[in-house]
Amino acid sequence: MGMVGGGIGAFIGAVHRMAAVLDGQIELVCGAFSSNPEKSKASGAELYLPEDRVYGSFEEMIQKEKELPEGERMDFVSIVTPNHLHVPPAKMALENGFSVICDKPLAYNLKEAKELKEIVDKSGLTFALTHNYTGYPMVKEGRDMIKSGKLGKIRKVVVEYPQGWLSTLQENSDNKQASWRVDPKKAGISSAMGDIGTHAENLAEFMTGLKISELCADLTAFGEGRQLDTDGNILLRFDNGARGVLHASQISAGEENNLKIFVYGEKGGLEWHQMEPNSLIVRMLDLPMQVYRTGADRAYLGKSAMAHTRIPAGHPEGYLEAFANIYRNFAMTLRARMEGKEPDPQYLDFPTVDDGIRGMAFIENAVASSKSDEKWYKFTI
Amino acid sequence: MGMVGGGIGAFIGAVHRMAAVLDGQIELVCGAFSSNPEKSKASGAELYLPEDRVYGSFEEMIQKEKELPEGERMDFVSIVTPNHLHVPPAKMALENGFSVICDKPLAYNLKEAKELKEIVDKSGLTFALTHNYTGYPMVKEGRDMIKSGKLGKIRKVVVEYPQGWLSTLQENSDNKQASWRVDPKKAGISSAMGDIGTHAENLAEFMTGLKISELCADLTAFGEGRQLDTDGNILLRFDNGARGVLHASQISAGEENNLKIFVYGEKGGLEWHQMEPNSLIVRMLDLPMQVYRTGADRAYLGKSAMAHTRIPAGHPEGYLEAFANIYRNFAMTLRARMEGKEPDPQYLDFPTVDDGIRGMAFIENAVASSKSDEKWYKFTI
Amino acid sequence: MGMVGGGIGAFIGAVHRMAAVLDGQIELVCGAFSSNPEKSKASGAELYLPEDRVYGSFEEMIQKEKELPEGERMDFVSIVTPNHLHVPPAKMALENGFSVICDKPLAYNLKEAKELKEIVDKSGLTFALTHNYTGYPMVKEGRDMIKSGKLGKIRKVVVEYPQGWLSTLQENSDNKQASWRVDPKKAGISSAMGDIGTHAENLAEFMTGLKISELCADLTAFGEGRQLDTDGNILLRFDNGARGVLHASQISAGEENNLKIFVYGEKGGLEWHQMEPNSLIVRMLDLPMQVYRTGADRAYLGKSAMAHTRIPAGHPEGYLEAFANIYRNFAMTLRARMEGKEPDPQYLDFPTVDDGIRGMAFIENAVASSKSDEKWYKFTI
Amino acid sequence: MGMVGGGIGAFIGAVHRMAAVLDGQIELVCGAFSSNPEKSKASGAELYLPEDRVYGSFEEMIQKEKELPEGERMDFVSIVTPNHLHVPPAKMALENGFSVICDKPLAYNLKEAKELKEIVDKSGLTFALTHNYTGYPMVKEGRDMIKSGKLGKIRKVVVEYPQGWLSTLQENSDNKQASWRVDPKKAGISSAMGDIGTHAENLAEFMTGLKISELCADLTAFGEGRQLDTDGNILLRFDNGARGVLHASQISAGEENNLKIFVYGEKGGLEWHQMEPNSLIVRMLDLPMQVYRTGADRAYLGKSAMAHTRIPAGHPEGYLEAFANIYRNFAMTLRARMEGKEPDPQYLDFPTVDDGIRGMAFIENAVASSKSDEKWYKFTI
Repeated sequence: MGMVGGGIGAFIGAVHRMAAVLDGQIELVCGAFSSNPEKSKASGAELYLPEDRVYGSFEEMIQKEKELPEGERMDFVSIVTPNHLHVPPAKMALENGFSVICDKPLAYNLKEAKELKEIVDKSGLTFALTHNYTGYPMVKEGRDMIKSGKLGKIRKVVVEYPQGWLSTLQENSDNKQASWRVDPKKAGISSAMGDIGTHAENLAEFMTGLKISELCADLTAFGEGRQLDTDGNILLRFDNGARGVLHASQISAGEENNLKIFVYGEKGGLEWHQMEPNSLIVRMLDLPMQVYRTGADRAYLGKSAMAHTRIPAGHPEGYLEAFANIYRNFAMTLRARMEGKEPDPQYLDFPTVDDGIRGMAFIENAVASSKSDEKWYKFTI
Repeated sequence: MGMVGGGIGAFIGAVHRMAAVLDGQIELVCGAFSSNPEKSKASGAELYLPEDRVYGSFEEMIQKEKELPEGERMDFVSIVTPNHLHVPPAKMALENGFSVICDKPLAYNLKEAKELKEIVDKSGLTFALTHNYTGYPMVKEGRDMIKSGKLGKIRKVVVEYPQGWLSTLQENSDNKQASWRVDPKKAGISSAMGDIGTHAENLAEFMTGLKISELCADLTAFGEGRQLDTDGNILLRFDNGARGVLHASQISAGEENNLKIFVYGEKGGLEWHQMEPNSLIVRMLDLPMQVYRTGADRAYLGKSAMAHTRIPAGHPEGYLEAFANIYRNFAMTLRARMEGKEPDPQYLDFPTVDDGIRGMAFIENAVASSKSDEKWYKFTI
Repeated sequence: MGMVGGGIGAFIGAVHRMAAVLDGQIELVCGAFSSNPEKSKASGAELYLPEDRVYGSFEEMIQKEKELPEGERMDFVSIVTPNHLHVPPAKMALENGFSVICDKPLAYNLKEAKELKEIVDKSGLTFALTHNYTGYPMVKEGRDMIKSGKLGKIRKVVVEYPQGWLSTLQENSDNKQASWRVDPKKAGISSAMGDIGTHAENLAEFMTGLKISELCADLTAFGEGRQLDTDGNILLRFDNGARGVLHASQISAGEENNLKIFVYGEKGGLEWHQMEPNSLIVRMLDLPMQVYRTGADRAYLGKSAMAHTRIPAGHPEGYLEAFANIYRNFAMTLRARMEGKEPDPQYLDFPTVDDGIRGMAFIENAVASSKSDEKWYKFTI
Repeated sequence: MGMVGGGIGAFIGAVHRMAAVLDGQIELVCGAFSSNPEKSKASGAELYLPEDRVYGSFEEMIQKEKELPEGERMDFVSIVTPNHLHVPPAKMALENGFSVICDKPLAYNLKEAKELKEIVDKSGLTFALTHNYTGYPMVKEGRDMIKSGKLGKIRKVVVEYPQGWLSTLQENSDNKQASWRVDPKKAGISSAMGDIGTHAENLAEFMTGLKISELCADLTAFGEGRQLDTDGNILLRFDNGARGVLHASQISAGEENNLKIFVYGEKGGLEWHQMEPNSLIVRMLDLPMQVYRTGADRAYLGKSAMAHTRIPAGHPEGYLEAFANIYRNFAMTLRARMEGKEPDPQYLDFPTVDDGIRGMAFIENAVASSKSDEKWYKFTI
């Protein structure tokens, strides 16, 4: 694996690295960790990389690695830069024969995202998007339960993602992440929707198998002087007639990373909280509430949840493990393909460029709906 | 106290009676428990009332009680009938000099509610509406905390009221309450908004001190053949610029009575759940999360929470105790006024006809907004 | 009902009154609220009792009430005094033909308790002890589940009752309850075991149907100058071979009233927490955890839980409702017997003098074991 | 790192490997994964190790690695075998100049443990014991809080470790771990105390800084035909006069891995649950309950908690991250020493051979106390 971005002190770069190595399937072999070559070198050194595999730019990395003999060069590129710098390295990597795993949202805007999809499709290479919350075992269990029809036809979906970290003007301090999140040049047209609204949208569509067909959004740029939304509340309509609510916020003071989802069908409902990710609460009509639990020894779990659990129940697995599930699946798929084999279907369970397209469309539809006087805005790609 | 409605088997009638007597301040002395005189008699007998104080209609009750000598006759009327039968007995009681405590929502429609308000205002009598959730000590603590400015300017309010009891067509079984809740002739123009949406609206406005100024609603009549909404999702804008979400549902399968509210200000946020009512979760920026707890021995609580708590912390108080707080306050206010005294301000803390007017307006605005293509519907009374 | 003790400001007196009247089956008609006649009068006046039914002593009350005509006089006596004053009024009441409901523990010591039992047995009257925690619907559900064999043979029981209210020397302030709880003359030979250890013992034996056969106790009088234990940790052995732990404390700083029990059988386990009393957590081997919930609409509940629930699920019932279940059952049993009928078996489900005997024996065995160098102390009555 | 034990399918071996690599500081370079050379080879292949670094026995591994040039050979040995095979490889590794990180409990018995300590002390090498629960940030926060005196003098400690996985006779199925845990030849004199009782003891002493001075144990071998305890209940006395309870069980049916601790001092108490490890509940007398939370952005946390947290609050960290903290600290200490530098004190925060000695002594004292008729058994080493 070669990494683009994620130099020292970058939150998400470190997360990707830990997630990548956890299962012993991936090794970091090179990187262009910063557009500042000095910083890139320093980061590479801290990561124990040989100097000649630490590059000053992603262009250099892709070029030089391509020139290395097969077996020595990196197998794929991991992109962990701010939003506006996702597509350029992804494009170049794919065009040079490297598979890609990329942080979300997929692109700076939808147009760019669509261009990238074309390149991915043409390339025949493997592309993964780190919508990491779908990596949690209990999210997969919930998805499979809904798919099996256990809850009946879905009627209502509530997905909520309150955070409070931008309650004050963090971008005026030295909080690097805050700075680019609220900067239209780097983040795109949205802060809250782009960062966490897409996670909520992705989680809702992933778990229910439904697609948002219409929405009605109210986005607000709370915080003196901010140009991008830091809060958004959205009514949803899904393609099967289900109704829904999505809200995401960076100014919900005191909240940590409280992503949660509630799905209600004709026969039962379920509930999942990212901050207590090892429990899936299931309520069937007329039965006691049930709590399904992550754990390699929980024989009642479905095949998919089991395939994404590492340890026995009661030893909590967390955010990094879910993230690692994406990396592990991507790596195993890639390995099979590189060996000319059909990947195990369990390993194909990772978010792709198509999820990325829907995510970018969600951002653009939400922003457009918020500006519109029309009540219902058709979800268009 | 004389009761209108609430015969044997009626859920809410029994609740009112338990709430009324809990504090030893109120005695049930007569009632017209059913429009069916036989049923009324039978109910009265079960309640150990003398036969001559059990009436066949509210008209009879009010007339006969009025003829009794002062000190013997009932002091006030408690109305626990379905929505369409709130205003007629309330009107007649007030016009005959009896104070009234009435179940919510206030009336069958807003027009009727406004007429009632005029009568209340003219009468000089005491009128309480049992928006019982505002009777919880931790709701009052939250309100006082927000009022004090502790959380800073409020930016966002999320209030949710999922129930699942109408997931199936209960009205086709012998569930009496279900039958009238979904019947436009008895419930009015809404089921979910009328029954629980009003509670959510009332709780949000009560705790924050803000008023809803605009809304955008999507109400749906889930359940084959139903005419009234059983689910509603609403975007809110408040008069201070705060944004919000309100959703309430009777088809959130498996949910019990899961009213909950989240309020976020510039300096902190709070959270309260009706199903764990003795905890108020407070999150100030940069401090550990705090949990305030109901309890007569919690010296850190404000005056108002203390005045509505009966026992030491850890002995859970519940729904009936909160309900009883409304009755107790109403009774103490009434007693003071009957004795020509000024009521203690603590006892004036109960919902009035004005809350009822806002509740009825909320229902009508929500239904109108849901039918409208306009995105933002001005909240009008 | 005539009350002994429970004057203004007494915590437990007010609890008993609220519990007694909640269901509309019991009326307070007289009382001897304090050994100080002035205070008794003042309390009676606050409770709206006629002056001639407020007495200066329990002796006076029992005598005078007995002289009243049947139908006018009180039907039974409720005793809510400190421990050393339980038996004298109970004895006199029973000897004069009045049934009795009494706060726990039953007596000042075991000897006195046994004498009382003889009197109760001879009298043929009804005697209830307010071990109120057994009044919770989910406690009854748990008991019935264990009885049915669902959990298999019970192997282990853990019952814990941490409180923190005596962490500091409350008895030196004007905390009336603290004063007598730590005073050997009023409380008997134990503070923590006498007050809350007995609750824990009663709960464990009630739910499991097992009896403690041996114990090994370590009691400590934390708090400068205290003579009675304020903390106790006890190993238990039950008559079926099960093992257990019981600990109860008044110096577990910060704890409210955190009674909780865990029962483990060969096939499954359960867990109940008094501070969240409406949930019963059940874990069967190899199945998702289940949460049974209080609620008049929870059709999966057993007959007994249903008979002690008042309102639909999600409307929390609390401490007073559980307490009221004891009073209601006692009253319905008494009423049936006074009418010469067989009481409904559901109503016979309240703690009796036999529970009181075991409670007193528990206190004496625990104190003796704590003083002994013997490891295992045989539970003797 | 070279690993002894932990072949394919071994729970704890995989855990150690994930924990070791998470932070990018440690690389697995060789191993003797099984006493069966075939199995060892197969495991090594799965782990992408070169064939010549996969050994048939630990003796071979240590010898061969020692012969490799510095910089190429492993830096330390990780031991993840059953209890009876901890000391032999540890001893040999140390005697050949390799530092060691070893799974707990330290040894097969106390005698062996003491011998090992002597060797460690003489060697001047670094030795870590994976009492992984002390790696949790909130455990460190609690320890530092207690040390600072915030809770006042500690009066009571309750530590509980219920598991249910040996409720049935797992050892008769193909559960490898179950087989050796209940086998005296491999596990030593105890199953529950040896496996999890030691964790509980270690956690209690680590957080409070107190030492157990006396104990009174009741251990039971639940499960037909078992020779070792699968359940244990113990009264504790600490060296400062504090009282306590420790119970640990493998037959608490339905429980996962529910290690929890409650510490009460004169001024406040705290509570931590391994299954929700990112929260530390703190209750100071007369203040609202507080919840401290893991998170790199929780500025209120102490230095030590911060140094063991990887990501912002609300992104749950779990069991593997806590485990990884032990490995990371061990590795950083070792690196410093290998470079002739003084290790950062933060990195010295890992369990050592001394913790192991106390753990082994705990097991032997508990078993001896359980067999004894003496009530209080002096904790002896």
